[in-house]
Amino acid sequence: MSTLIINQQRLIDDIMTLAMSTEHDTPGWTRRFPSDAYRRGRQWLRAHMEAEGLRTGLDAVGNLFGRREGSASLPPIHVGSHTDTVMGGGKFDGVLGVLGALEAVRAIREAGILLSHPVVVADYLSEEATDYGIACMGSLAMCTDHFQPSWLERTVHGISLRQAIAEMGGQPDRLGQPLVKAGDIAASLELHIEQGPVLEAHNVKLAAVSGIVGIRRAIFELHGKANHAGATPMYLRRDAMAAAAQMIVAIEEIVHAHPGTVGTVGKVVVTPNQGNVIAEKVTIIPEMRSLDMTEVDGMWAEFMEIVQVACTKRKVTLDIFNETRMDSVMPPRWLHDLTLDVCRRYDPHAMITPSGAGHDTNYLALIAPAAMIFVPSVDGRSHAPEEYTAPEDLARGVQALADLIVEVDRCC
Amino acid sequence: MSTLIINQQRLIDDIMTLAMSTEHDTPGWTRRFPSDAYRRGRQWLRAHMEAEGLRTGLDAVGNLFGRREGSASLPPIHVGSHTDTVMGGGKFDGVLGVLGALEAVRAIREAGILLSHPVVVADYLSEEATDYGIACMGSLAMCTDHFQPSWLERTVHGISLRQAIAEMGGQPDRLGQPLVKAGDIAASLELHIEQGPVLEAHNVKLAAVSGIVGIRRAIFELHGKANHAGATPMYLRRDAMAAAAQMIVAIEEIVHAHPGTVGTVGKVVVTPNQGNVIAEKVTIIPEMRSLDMTEVDGMWAEFMEIVQVACTKRKVTLDIFNETRMDSVMPPRWLHDLTLDVCRRYDPHAMITPSGAGHDTNYLALIAPAAMIFVPSVDGRSHAPEEYTAPEDLARGVQALADLIVEVDRCC
Repeated sequence: MSTLIINQQRLIDDIMTLAMSTEHDTPGWTRRFPSDAYRRGRQWLRAHMEAEGLRTGLDAVGNLFGRREGSASLPPIHVGSHTDTVMGGGKFDGVLGVLGALEAVRAIREAGILLSHPVVVADYLSEEATDYGIACMGSLAMCTDHFQPSWLERTVHGISLRQAIAEMGGQPDRLGQPLVKAGDIAASLELHIEQGPVLEAHNVKLAAVSGIVGIRRAIFELHGKANHAGATPMYLRRDAMAAAAQMIVAIEEIVHAHPGTVGTVGKVVVTPNQGNVIAEKVTIIPEMRSLDMTEVDGMWAEFMEIVQVACTKRKVTLDIFNETRMDSVMPPRWLHDLTLDVCRRYDPHAMITPSGAGHDTNYLALIAPAAMIFVPSVDGRSHAPEEYTAPEDLARGVQALADLIVEVDRCC
Repeated sequence: MSTLIINQQRLIDDIMTLAMSTEHDTPGWTRRFPSDAYRRGRQWLRAHMEAEGLRTGLDAVGNLFGRREGSASLPPIHVGSHTDTVMGGGKFDGVLGVLGALEAVRAIREAGILLSHPVVVADYLSEEATDYGIACMGSLAMCTDHFQPSWLERTVHGISLRQAIAEMGGQPDRLGQPLVKAGDIAASLELHIEQGPVLEAHNVKLAAVSGIVGIRRAIFELHGKANHAGATPMYLRRDAMAAAAQMIVAIEEIVHAHPGTVGTVGKVVVTPNQGNVIAEKVTIIPEMRSLDMTEVDGMWAEFMEIVQVACTKRKVTLDIFNETRMDSVMPPRWLHDLTLDVCRRYDPHAMITPSGAGHDTNYLALIAPAAMIFVPSVDGRSHAPEEYTAPEDLARGVQALADLIVEVDRCC
């Protein structure tokens, strides 16, 4: 065990204080980019970081950092997540990763440990997708060249993205090139609630994340023919819903044949959507995920063969939009082993699990060794007011995170 | 061939004149019960019947009749359909059956034919379901005891069904018992557009309807569990959409194994309906139809077995609402043969086909020998502004109908 002592009450107080910055006209907790509630929350956070003696600042996209220098001239260890939420979200998604990082650096200071590396507590901007249509905006703009300056002109409720970033403290005109490069950051660590039911189902309290799964996803528009459901014999139909149903069943069958992978159709929109009219048009968003991208690509190819058959045999035509292929990311072996090791200090049954959801770590991993720790989500719920993790489980995650910071400091 | 001569231009003029009674704030043609447009159309129709020398009147539910006496004291032959439409419907659905009946009795008079039976041109009230939730209201209330007096209190846009029927000229307080009994009507004939693609696909112009298919239908509410599509492994899911998809595929497979039957799911509503969230709740309205009710019942039982499997293997629960079982109806053999015979006079390739859609004939058949004639629907379209049947095809249908009236008059 470590000499570090996490103050559970202080952690919970911080989480509850930040939760008070919320838009009051929605149920649950809402701090969306670029709302007043989000800005108010970050102002409190920045002051709170400074009270801990961290030097604070924002980068060009508006990521908020609180930095403590180390004893040596080394690149910093980044520890953080995000404080924005979905509309009507919970109190823990993202928040635990930021306020847990702050509690960890406090505990390290209180234990009298002086790290060699600087440590940066990071609150990455707008991890949740907003109406601007960009998920993980802060980490994406920081670590990649994907951010298109033309996006700055996108306007939501009369506010351009340029204005919105400026209001959050960023410098939008400096965006377009990565803000950091490989080597600038020694390691990136993110503590997060699982947002899934696996830890709870296995009754474990901590997990070392083996990686963030890769994903293939697309919008399918199937075009059939609306005709009377009674008056149209089967051989004269072009039933877009029947074709879509065959695809949905196929996804499930394919992923069942590949243990550890998942596949889903959560969205189905039917036109005209009347009981006695054959579906003219059906939109579905099929997706498949796995840590192994070769496996995802193989399953997708298998799926597309069935898609063709499902369309052809019903004379249904298919348009495909927004085809997405996002690579999986995995921590380097040494960092994964270290992460599992600290998790097992506080839960001997700590498990290894992939993250099925995307995180800021997706982008940090492109420029630095990056790892995540999960704590359980009750009932697997997230992105909803019911999102919950017990205080002692939150504190246990922060304890592992603090230990991991110390271990990483020694190793790289 | 017959000595009866149908005046195609007069028929088309009547159809176009009635089409002018429409609600002007909707595209297509709209005469819904109990709108002004519907009432205006019927006022014109009533005057037009009287101009032809028919004695007009309404029964208690508001069915409009125009009667010509016969030479003998016999029950009447009813010939008709409905003049109401769906919201944004076409010009021919129902209308052809009413104005075609009027043209047929005109042609019979002009040919100097005096029938033994009285003939009644009938415009049955509100065949299309409205927000009052009752399809075939006029024929149902006339021929059955299904009409519940409590329905009269149903209120839509501030108008109770009682008021609505009274405004259409009915006497709502007399409803509840059938308005006619078996034997009161010698025979019931209905000319209708097919509302399906079969006649056009076979390039035939007339069909003797072998019957109106029976139907089984229900509202299924599937309850699963909303969880993150990435973070929830397959073995911990309760995916209501995957279960629904298996059911939709099953319906199609089952009816394909029973030629001549049809099965459809045209309505699918998913909650929360987000690409990255497993479906919590899915509502579908499965239905199956066939002329052979034993076959429908057998297919439904087969379907329900798969429904159970689909739910059980995904821990999805199922609530079933509004389970409907409507018997098929068929003309007596002598009337069917007579109908096919007159159709073949005007199209040697006239075919026999079931009606997949319901009609007023469903209820007339309960108290009288009842038959239908179909003319083609271009592209199978109906209940839409594009609904179309060529003028010569409309007239050919009326010709067959007029001949059939004369033949039935001789036979019963």
